[in-house]
Amino acid sequence: MAERAALEELVKLQGERVRGLKQQKASAELIEEEVAKLLKLKAQLGPDESKQKFVLKTPKGTRDYSPRQMAVREKVFDVIIRCFKRHGAEVIDTPVFELKETLMGKYGEDSKLIYDLKDQGGELLSLRYDLTVPFARYLAMNKLTNIKRYHIAKVYRRDNPAMTRGRYREFYQCDFDIAGNFDPMIPDAECLKIMCEILSSLQIGDFLVKVNDRRILDGMFAICGVSDSKFRTICSSVDKLDKVSWEEVKNEMAVLLQTPAQAGEEPLGVGSVAAGGRYDGLVGMFDPKGRKVPCVGLSIGVERIFSIVEQRLEALEEKVRTTETQVLVASAQKKLLEERLKLVSELWDAGIKAELLYKKNPKLLNQLQYCEEAGIPLVAIIGEQELKDGVIKLRSVTSREEVREVAEDLKSGQNRDFNFYYGTTPFSYKAQEA
Amino acid sequence: MAERAALEELVKLQGERVRGLKQQKASAELIEEEVAKLLKLKAQLGPDESKQKFVLKTPKGTRDYSPRQMAVREKVFDVIIRCFKRHGAEVIDTPVFELKETLMGKYGEDSKLIYDLKDQGGELLSLRYDLTVPFARYLAMNKLTNIKRYHIAKVYRRDNPAMTRGRYREFYQCDFDIAGNFDPMIPDAECLKIMCEILSSLQIGDFLVKVNDRRILDGMFAICGVSDSKFRTICSSVDKLDKVSWEEVKNEMAVLLQTPAQAGEEPLGVGSVAAGGRYDGLVGMFDPKGRKVPCVGLSIGVERIFSIVEQRLEALEEKVRTTETQVLVASAQKKLLEERLKLVSELWDAGIKAELLYKKNPKLLNQLQYCEEAGIPLVAIIGEQELKDGVIKLRSVTSREEVREVAEDLKSGQNRDFNFYYGTTPFSYKAQEA
Repeated sequence: MAERAALEELVKLQGERVRGLKQQKASAELIEEEVAKLLKLKAQLGPDESKQKFVLKTPKGTRDYSPRQMAVREKVFDVIIRCFKRHGAEVIDTPVFELKETLMGKYGEDSKLIYDLKDQGGELLSLRYDLTVPFARYLAMNKLTNIKRYHIAKVYRRDNPAMTRGRYREFYQCDFDIAGNFDPMIPDAECLKIMCEILSSLQIGDFLVKVNDRRILDGMFAICGVSDSKFRTICSSVDKLDKVSWEEVKNEMAVLLQTPAQAGEEPLGVGSVAAGGRYDGLVGMFDPKGRKVPCVGLSIGVERIFSIVEQRLEALEEKVRTTETQVLVASAQKKLLEERLKLVSELWDAGIKAELLYKKNPKLLNQLQYCEEAGIPLVAIIGEQELKDGVIKLRSVTSREEVREVAEDLKSGQNRDFNFYYGTTPFSYKAQEA
Repeated sequence: MAERAALEELVKLQGERVRGLKQQKASAELIEEEVAKLLKLKAQLGPDESKQKFVLKTPKGTRDYSPRQMAVREKVFDVIIRCFKRHGAEVIDTPVFELKETLMGKYGEDSKLIYDLKDQGGELLSLRYDLTVPFARYLAMNKLTNIKRYHIAKVYRRDNPAMTRGRYREFYQCDFDIAGNFDPMIPDAECLKIMCEILSSLQIGDFLVKVNDRRILDGMFAICGVSDSKFRTICSSVDKLDKVSWEEVKNEMAVLLQTPAQAGEEPLGVGSVAAGGRYDGLVGMFDPKGRKVPCVGLSIGVERIFSIVEQRLEALEEKVRTTETQVLVASAQKKLLEERLKLVSELWDAGIKAELLYKKNPKLLNQLQYCEEAGIPLVAIIGEQELKDGVIKLRSVTSREEVREVAEDLKSGQNRDFNFYYGTTPFSYKAQEA
């Protein structure tokens, strides 16, 4: 430690020497020489491990959502949820983990991508890999034979993520499924309609819906003389044609085994953003008596959609508000904290979205600057004179127009109905919200 | 297996024998005797393990949310989110797991309740235990010194849950926090205001807010002569006074060590449903240079609130709708599937929440029954005559009133503006939605 301290002192002195030479406008050559010495000393010193206590990162393949990203996420979810509700779906939720045995035998080769929890005593658990298997477990457990539900939640895959293209280890799925014994193709058609409605509403460009039925392929292979035992394997290889070149797939024929999507898949310029199909056998795997519940559903891959919308917003240099605050309660004078608190409190109680700066005596300029940065449209200014007159000054932050309005009983705190409906003035909140 | 099959056969024969005797109305004594034989044989047989493939349950301490429970959850979240937004908060989200080292050393004794993920190669991960530590990690990682945000998400604790009282191993927290250097007590006061606004809006009854400051206790103990090293321990014992009797706590004094809540806690008849306080040192634990970001926040324990609201709904025997469907497209006649699909599709495109039964030729009675069960207020009935006349019959499910309305271009499928605004008829959707 003493050695390190001495070295730190040397680095400091050499740094000062370099700065001194620069101030003296010494020759470039001399400065370069001394900078080289400084860098050598710094290299000897190395990083200060005692201070770097933590690796500050999220786990591999995951990310935080900033307020700006959350604004995009909420907009996308809003479109999707409105569509699911328009089609009469109920909503359910399931735990983020399931008993390990619930997931076992459902994903073939991909099972190796499941996150297991550590055995800390008690049940063996795994993080959900999709929302379909938990849904089937839910149906069997509650003996439901008939439900139309959606489920929006994060799922987990220990995949090698390409995060730049919107692929993560923790990612959202938006699932809509119809379970029950119905006349053929009617629920299937509704699933396709939902996909089209959502992708159109999101305005992310043209899209192509591919509809297929594995049984057609089955027939083709039967004619080609592929043996029964090779069916699945061949199918999963064909399923990859969308993702890799024919050459790669050809080499794989009778090599890999994975569950192929059975019907309905949507590729875009950026790749597939939604997929779906029938899974008539899954619920029966959970039922003790093997009772089947035919199901059809779809899943929207929203992470790629988030990426597309975020990129579009950046390209447009569009300012995204991350709060909904309508008015900032401000003051130009000192010692009015209590009055500001009273007013903002009345606004909150009247359901108006309002803020104030957490300072005893903030400067008016700082308060107006805060409004501009946060996109707050209105500022309510109170001062000694306004309080005496029983009015507040309302200013539009962008146009700088001002009106003085009567704030009845502002000081008495009795006016619970205080609000911003000022007839025809441009500050009317009714107009702003419309 | 052959032995089991023989035993199964014996059970079957004995069962038939018992049924036969009952049909013959044999003496009760004789039947009892034969039933005893049957039970003995069944006991020898034991449960059929080969058929019980799966334990159909969610992991210990977790639960699914049914559509009915989701309706309650969405109602409660709506109140809370509206309040957080009213106070100008942004929203963030973080991954469900963190690097294990991020959580280490933050929860004292309670660390043993953290869920670890299995080491499958790569980073060591743990499920988040609360939303506060991920928030502090987020601030330090993004070098943020100033933010007001909320975060609603599930957290995980390997606790012994009392699920009947709304305590789970997977449960929601609704956190609101203000980070930054501000004048004293102003953000703290807003946190208390938010708690009161939310608990009032939820109408779950009277509540009591307890405000305290650990430094007061520190002073009291200093006067009592408690040594510096025992401070924390004594405090955590006192912190338990709300939960257990004084006798139990007295025995613990200088025994347990846990982080006590520092200010603001709200007990109710059902116990505490919200808590909060300052944590000025936490962000500094993540910053390589130990830079501090003072923070204050609150957390709403919504699971208990869900329980209270659910119980209230059950007591009122109130019918909760789990979908928002406005109209069912129905037919009294056969072979009109295509026409029904056309109409429902037009309704969806016009933004109206509509459904149809997934049957080629459903009975009108079944369609009306579906409306009554699902609480759908309107049914749009089409038949040969209506199609010929270019009208649809609209019926109110509860009042059974009917009107025939012109459905322009229904057959041509050109009318994209089809909707239910029928002037002053009671079926006007404008009125229904208000």
